[in-house]
Amino acid sequence: MNTVRVELGSRSYPITIGSGILPDIGSLLKELDFSGSIALVSNTTVFPLYGATVSRSLSACGFSCTEIILPDGEEFKTMASAEKICEAMLRARFDRTSVVVALGGGVVGDLSAFAASVYMRGIDFIQVPTTLLAQVDSSVGGKTGVNHPLGKNMIGTFWQPRLVWIDIDTLLSLPRREFAAGVAEIVKYGIIRDQEVFDFLEKNSQNVLNLEREPLTHIISRSCEIKADVVARDEREGGLRAILNFGHTIGHALETATGYTSFLHGEAVAVGMYVESEIARLLGIIGSEDVLRIRRLLSNYGLPSAIPGDINLELFFDSMKLDKKAVSGTLRFILPDRIGNVTIHSAVPEPLIRQAVEQSIMQ
Amino acid sequence: MNTVRVELGSRSYPITIGSGILPDIGSLLKELDFSGSIALVSNTTVFPLYGATVSRSLSACGFSCTEIILPDGEEFKTMASAEKICEAMLRARFDRTSVVVALGGGVVGDLSAFAASVYMRGIDFIQVPTTLLAQVDSSVGGKTGVNHPLGKNMIGTFWQPRLVWIDIDTLLSLPRREFAAGVAEIVKYGIIRDQEVFDFLEKNSQNVLNLEREPLTHIISRSCEIKADVVARDEREGGLRAILNFGHTIGHALETATGYTSFLHGEAVAVGMYVESEIARLLGIIGSEDVLRIRRLLSNYGLPSAIPGDINLELFFDSMKLDKKAVSGTLRFILPDRIGNVTIHSAVPEPLIRQAVEQSIMQ
Repeated sequence: MNTVRVELGSRSYPITIGSGILPDIGSLLKELDFSGSIALVSNTTVFPLYGATVSRSLSACGFSCTEIILPDGEEFKTMASAEKICEAMLRARFDRTSVVVALGGGVVGDLSAFAASVYMRGIDFIQVPTTLLAQVDSSVGGKTGVNHPLGKNMIGTFWQPRLVWIDIDTLLSLPRREFAAGVAEIVKYGIIRDQEVFDFLEKNSQNVLNLEREPLTHIISRSCEIKADVVARDEREGGLRAILNFGHTIGHALETATGYTSFLHGEAVAVGMYVESEIARLLGIIGSEDVLRIRRLLSNYGLPSAIPGDINLELFFDSMKLDKKAVSGTLRFILPDRIGNVTIHSAVPEPLIRQAVEQSIMQ
Repeated sequence: MNTVRVELGSRSYPITIGSGILPDIGSLLKELDFSGSIALVSNTTVFPLYGATVSRSLSACGFSCTEIILPDGEEFKTMASAEKICEAMLRARFDRTSVVVALGGGVVGDLSAFAASVYMRGIDFIQVPTTLLAQVDSSVGGKTGVNHPLGKNMIGTFWQPRLVWIDIDTLLSLPRREFAAGVAEIVKYGIIRDQEVFDFLEKNSQNVLNLEREPLTHIISRSCEIKADVVARDEREGGLRAILNFGHTIGHALETATGYTSFLHGEAVAVGMYVESEIARLLGIIGSEDVLRIRRLLSNYGLPSAIPGDINLELFFDSMKLDKKAVSGTLRFILPDRIGNVTIHSAVPEPLIRQAVEQSIMQ
């Protein structure tokens, strides 16, 4: 069992990574002196798998537990769903001592965290991420959000969890495609900050894909460490934190332009990382050898790097300009100069972006 | 012109109180180095009165201004309205440098502040309150919120404005009843923290009711000072800030039980302050002479102190238990021991509350 601490002063919290630790959640919360009612928020896919384990563990430790089960899917990550969670908590007479526990992937996590952050102006919140993507990315760092038809995560808050509880055994039930999508974010950590993780992913692809506990625990812990370090230095994305968005400017635009249906988030980020590396190459910042390594690693994990041939390019560029990371109309990109380091570029010429995008379209 | 500072470290901000200062908002924002687009949020009552002045002032200083006009009324203080504001900003391609300016009373302020706090996880926000209640209470302190059918302000955030700009001349167009409702919150500051304000309100009721500039500026500035001081000591309502809720536990229950239609917020608080003073008297904390002074002062300003005869008592007590200020089922009251000081009482016996409520029902 590994523990990574996110250092944020009075709002610091631990991330625990282990195998088979799901049934210990109740006693953990009791030890930490939680006393209020608990809302266990999950979805119709995850709850039947792990809901009873968590629910039983909470009840056994004397917690009164209200189950809030949402439909599965990014299309339910809306303000209306957040309001439904709040309504269920109001009906159950939750007060400011109540706690929200999110059991599921990124959608359940982001949505529950948003609801916790606005319920009575903010109550405690705990992440129990069950997908690789949520374990290495969305459950750590305090970004909450819901989607709007005009853009992903356009409405949200910064709200840190009180703890993150990662049972890697939940990955055994994760569809292979979703597992690979999670690996994309680990590849990202390698490119932006840690060549060793990148090398490790290259050398151990079979062990990782076989879900062996040791390499899995290693790369998840290392990912959480990197994210925790970046978040601790820049909680509200004033500067450094922006590097976590490597691959995301193109990735988000791709998701929006394809109506959030063709790509899993991690897959869109995989394409985004490749296209943004190509932008770096066209700018002469990174060598073609490194870009090739990135493309090859993505491919080893079954991840895409090409933009679909039927993409609506106008919608694509349009949504890119509406990105949260855009500042007063200029596009900002996080570009690697080698594997293990990125820098922020605030005025990349649009024709060059178009060139990188167009040459990445599937033939 | 008076300036009161709310001291909150890097999030400190000034409240400016003056006469005829509305047209200066544009140059002020320019001086303060704001550069992004501005959303001017208002309602169908206030916008026709002051919208053009503010809009012209902003445009003259080079700001691109998007007007977002909502229907007037507490019933529009909903999550759906907040989402509408966000949608208008998305359509206008607002980014993280954009600014929300709220021109109106408490509903416009709370709702716009909530929207600003969740738009792209939080953008800058400026309060231009045009009602007395908003000027002395809701525009200061960073509480944002929307209502839910199950309770008032149940969904919200803490989000501080960058500045508050109070032009007391806007009170000239305020209906008398709404003006009086604002005075209720000033009476509250007197009872909880400052006997001098209470005395001033007693001695100068005619001048205040005649909207004379000097006494008005004095009591508004003093109210802002008291609120700023309390908020600076306890931003997130961990302790001291709770005293601002004097009159509000009963007041909110009264608003909920009457469907938000019979009482203005300040009127409900007036009744709440009287009933809660009665609770204090029944507990032997405050003398009957002081309670009489409170009742008389409310009456001098045309404010109610009785609960309507047709109140649904079950709904009333029920909504009181659901109040945000309730902690794990126990009711907490802020009770005065004299005019100028209150203390927090966490376990007031329910029969005593019932007695105070029942004897305050209109005969």
